[in-house]
Amino acid sequence: MGFKDKIRVIEDFPKEGISFKDITTLLKDGEAYKASIDACIEKVKDISFDVIVAPEARGFLIGAPISYEMKKGLVPVRKPGKLPAETLDYEYELEYGTDVLQMHVDGIEKGQRVLIVDDLLATGGTIASVVKMVEKLGGQVAGILFLMELEFLNGRDMLENYRIESVVKY
Amino acid sequence: MGFKDKIRVIEDFPKEGISFKDITTLLKDGEAYKASIDACIEKVKDISFDVIVAPEARGFLIGAPISYEMKKGLVPVRKPGKLPAETLDYEYELEYGTDVLQMHVDGIEKGQRVLIVDDLLATGGTIASVVKMVEKLGGQVAGILFLMELEFLNGRDMLENYRIESVVKY
Repeated sequence: MGFKDKIRVIEDFPKEGISFKDITTLLKDGEAYKASIDACIEKVKDISFDVIVAPEARGFLIGAPISYEMKKGLVPVRKPGKLPAETLDYEYELEYGTDVLQMHVDGIEKGQRVLIVDDLLATGGTIASVVKMVEKLGGQVAGILFLMELEFLNGRDMLENYRIESVVKY
Repeated sequence: MGFKDKIRVIEDFPKEGISFKDITTLLKDGEAYKASIDACIEKVKDISFDVIVAPEARGFLIGAPISYEMKKGLVPVRKPGKLPAETLDYEYELEYGTDVLQMHVDGIEKGQRVLIVDDLLATGGTIASVVKMVEKLGGQVAGILFLMELEFLNGRDMLENYRIESVVKY
């Protein structure tokens, strides 16, 4: 299936010069959404892992159905103030300023093999932070899976040493 | 399966007096998470609907796997600034102040039957707003499904005239 036909491109969102890949047009088509998740699973079916780690909110839309189908647990990465138990906090650089991500410290057990899942690999900044958090908690990153990848931004450079998979490439 | 054993209760989060139902302990157990989604599906399998509407972010964790398994599209309800195309904006009252939810105006087609899905029915305020948004866009609410329900808050009173289902009751 040509997933690109289902993904809408919106120019200058969230700011000028950015060509935003809008997956809501894919999501609302039940057959296409399911097929895109199955294509994600196909990419990682040879990877042995224990648990999925996915950042909110779009990462949940890809990670949660994979978790369901593969019967693997899901550990959410969230913005501050959302997780009620003890958290690991990780501050990372944005173009302007910084942002913070949180995971529950008991989300991952030492030695667990982790598949990180998100909707989009762009510059790789967010996911590089998630990798560091997983490793800080004692997890082993078994692979990183994206529905989409903006190849011209070379996000893989930030994630060398890890196995990266993506389904739709721009 | 006793899902309550898998859901962690954390007192006084996000503020004093609230007994927070933390589903991260359920989510990270792959078998339990899948079983909880299957229990959700069991509750709505006799409802005829075209599409799922789910609010971010925890609503995605329940709605997305149901969408996958039932091959129905998913339309996200988001906080402002996240959806790139034309939106319907809906302001609703909080205990202190107001908040805004957004949906894409092309998310639902006129006459489509909609299953609304979220993690928790508490006072019902958020979901009552989602119901109004769906109806404003011409959708018909076929049912409303929650993983959990706080029965003592009587959230159903705000949603009478609609079919409500929930799996775990407190």
